[in-house]
Amino acid sequence: MKDISRNLTMLFDFYEITMGNGYFKSGYADRIVYFDLFYRDNPDNGGYAVAAGLEQIIEYIENLSFDGDDIEYLRSKGYFDEEFLNYLSTFRFTGDIWAVPEGTVVFPGEPLITVRAKAIEAQFIETYMLLMINHQSLIATKAARITRAARGRAVSEFGSRRAQGADAAILGARAAYIGGCNSTACAIADQVYGVPATGTMAHSWVQMFDDEYTAFKTYCEIYPNNATLLIDTYNVLNSGVPNAIKVFNEVLKPLGITKCGVRLDSGDITYLTKKVRKMLDDAGWNECKIIVSNSLDEYIIREIIRQGAEVDAFGVGERLITAKSHPVFGAVYKLCAVENENGEIIPRIKISENVGKITTPHFKKVYRLRGRDTGKAEADLICLYDETVDDSMPIELFDPEYTWKRKTLENYTAEELLVPIFKNGELVYEVPTLEEIRAHHQKEMNGMWDEVKRFTNPHNYYVDLSQKLWDIKNGLLQKAGTRDNRK
Amino acid sequence: MKDISRNLTMLFDFYEITMGNGYFKSGYADRIVYFDLFYRDNPDNGGYAVAAGLEQIIEYIENLSFDGDDIEYLRSKGYFDEEFLNYLSTFRFTGDIWAVPEGTVVFPGEPLITVRAKAIEAQFIETYMLLMINHQSLIATKAARITRAARGRAVSEFGSRRAQGADAAILGARAAYIGGCNSTACAIADQVYGVPATGTMAHSWVQMFDDEYTAFKTYCEIYPNNATLLIDTYNVLNSGVPNAIKVFNEVLKPLGITKCGVRLDSGDITYLTKKVRKMLDDAGWNECKIIVSNSLDEYIIREIIRQGAEVDAFGVGERLITAKSHPVFGAVYKLCAVENENGEIIPRIKISENVGKITTPHFKKVYRLRGRDTGKAEADLICLYDETVDDSMPIELFDPEYTWKRKTLENYTAEELLVPIFKNGELVYEVPTLEEIRAHHQKEMNGMWDEVKRFTNPHNYYVDLSQKLWDIKNGLLQKAGTRDNRK
Repeated sequence: MKDISRNLTMLFDFYEITMGNGYFKSGYADRIVYFDLFYRDNPDNGGYAVAAGLEQIIEYIENLSFDGDDIEYLRSKGYFDEEFLNYLSTFRFTGDIWAVPEGTVVFPGEPLITVRAKAIEAQFIETYMLLMINHQSLIATKAARITRAARGRAVSEFGSRRAQGADAAILGARAAYIGGCNSTACAIADQVYGVPATGTMAHSWVQMFDDEYTAFKTYCEIYPNNATLLIDTYNVLNSGVPNAIKVFNEVLKPLGITKCGVRLDSGDITYLTKKVRKMLDDAGWNECKIIVSNSLDEYIIREIIRQGAEVDAFGVGERLITAKSHPVFGAVYKLCAVENENGEIIPRIKISENVGKITTPHFKKVYRLRGRDTGKAEADLICLYDETVDDSMPIELFDPEYTWKRKTLENYTAEELLVPIFKNGELVYEVPTLEEIRAHHQKEMNGMWDEVKRFTNPHNYYVDLSQKLWDIKNGLLQKAGTRDNRK
Repeated sequence: MKDISRNLTMLFDFYEITMGNGYFKSGYADRIVYFDLFYRDNPDNGGYAVAAGLEQIIEYIENLSFDGDDIEYLRSKGYFDEEFLNYLSTFRFTGDIWAVPEGTVVFPGEPLITVRAKAIEAQFIETYMLLMINHQSLIATKAARITRAARGRAVSEFGSRRAQGADAAILGARAAYIGGCNSTACAIADQVYGVPATGTMAHSWVQMFDDEYTAFKTYCEIYPNNATLLIDTYNVLNSGVPNAIKVFNEVLKPLGITKCGVRLDSGDITYLTKKVRKMLDDAGWNECKIIVSNSLDEYIIREIIRQGAEVDAFGVGERLITAKSHPVFGAVYKLCAVENENGEIIPRIKISENVGKITTPHFKKVYRLRGRDTGKAEADLICLYDETVDDSMPIELFDPEYTWKRKTLENYTAEELLVPIFKNGELVYEVPTLEEIRAHHQKEMNGMWDEVKRFTNPHNYYVDLSQKLWDIKNGLLQKAGTRDNRK
């Protein structure tokens, strides 16, 4: 497949390198530290999110290096001396990374990525990792919501022209496919990532000819096996559908072709599709699919299906490719521990007046606990790195905030969510194909209770802390001992 | 400067090439057509937008070509024969393009770009042109709103990590600078486009050390001339500010340095900055700047300034880089005319049940009419391509919808908004530098009445049609003669 990758080592927030130089100068360069990448709230007040973007992070980490131009640029800023610039010229990532595989259903507060590395290395990769996870998880999550609303009807991603830049179009199409879309309009997403691309005609095709009938006829003659006609350039019911039927009869029928389509991109979708369906059926074109587009999202799709709209497939553009109703996936990357001179892991916490911004300290792992009979996920449990859950024994879970809320889980399986990606800078992960990622996502969705997937007022999925981890977090908070900024 | 460009010829909606092949097969390949790129509504219910993205379109047009991989991919789809693929292998853009320069203040319904080219060429470039204009105009417009709200205080773009992909971060920083931001956190936007990048420390710096005082002291010793300390890792008033003052006294004062800064990234900004200002002033650090960040946008900035917050500069992240409150700039690209065999220009219209989606037909130009005394823009007038406005004569304008609303303008200047960019496929435009674009934008903003720039309930800026153009549009609508889809 075509390669359109670039070396984006220089895509970092400037403070990453200001701090990097600071660590270098103050003897912290080689200190081993731990960072977690996690998010705080589900998009659209939903019950879950879908992790995506890891493959691009892997490519980035593998290519991480400063070339001569980069060093020259950094020199020109006047902040850095030759010793540091020389260090950067051979800079590589040599640490460890664990991550949740792409397509996995994830929840607020749990690490999606954990990095163990030298301070400069772990710090430096912050911006790019967040950027990739924030973008693709946002779109994969939106796509999961939209395809769920479509209840089995095909959904095609149509948004390239409204995306926020070229990568948003291309990787957005990739993420939408992971999240459940069936295809994209974006050709390069097909060429580079294998997201199936489709597309027939725009209004300009219809306008280009002297009349709609000629436009439709010309198209069907060229593409008899892919004849989806856009019927709303002039008037759907008085012109678009009659002309489509006429052309289907004249061009497709003699060829024995019964499969075709019409597309509607404006107007009252429920009203029009019911009328269009009847007209097509009355003319014997009951295999003709009706495809609709025009500023759709999960809410509108749910509503028009509820109203009985006759739709076979949806094209979803700007509201998917920008996640318009909630265009930010707020993942953050926070220091959670440092190693001292003896290799002991010292937990670190960030305290905030906004309680939601307080971090969970220490080097951790995450278990997903599933009912052994149902296969459905019941809770995730965040533990210390050296704890092990024995799923042959009952386990008591408790709410980390309201600790009197307790529940004992029996007959469950415990599976680790984070898997090793890099070990000492070497890739140790077999990167799955896009089809494997998409299949993994479908399996993940099937493993969630409907109450979690609901998109209005979903159940709050449990993400709990082990007793040991809770004790450490609470101890650090007590030690900080500060009430707030009021005097 | 570093080059990170890629050939993105393949970034198109698949239907562009399905239609292209259709034009090719039906003898329309060489037909000369006219398309307008325009938008319908200002973001955030504002009174204007800021055009941006042209430079990237120029690069794209100049590099437009299919390589062997591209042809092979298209062949693999099974829709296209060798004759067409052979045609594509030497495909270049050979037409004419006019556009509004980047940084220009623009309004709904007027062409930002007009393309005159062979049908396949004009059709093919649709997706990429829309993508670039939609993204960068969105961010430049948001930046104009945010920097206006900041009332002269510096605004830095901080959003890379929350951007929708790498290009959204990099070109978003470029667009934000055009729209008035003073700097970015994004290093590569500085390296590649010359947007000044700055950055000091994250919470991780403070957490990395055993205590906040040591973190601050270490930083000031390394960067005494760039000492902006992040004061909200533990407790702003009880810890952050006292430690900052202590370190300023110990490290900066002996060096005679009086310029420094503190940054706040959480909490009650108005309350805290007033307290912080007083503590700094009482300690003699009245030149210490207070920089704030944390989910800011134009509304919050306006409000905290109104509340009397003591802020010298703003860092604006996710709500700028994604234009969170309105993340789609809905520009479209519509066929407006075709040339017949005799070279006559035949206007084409797209009718829609949604009246707002009806297009303005024909090959057009746009004049901006400014008061000769005030220099302020009073209206834009869209004319036929061969009309000329003589600004030594009074001109009567009328509302294209409510045609009885009329106004005579005297003592004005008329300036054409669209300038030639490509002529017969050759670049005929001297691409301005980023600093020139930014200066042009400031001049443009100064040339608009405050009532248009207001961000709640702005005046509706007039975009009128000449009588000749109105007559043609109305004639085509009357001829179509369709009322609606009700039967």
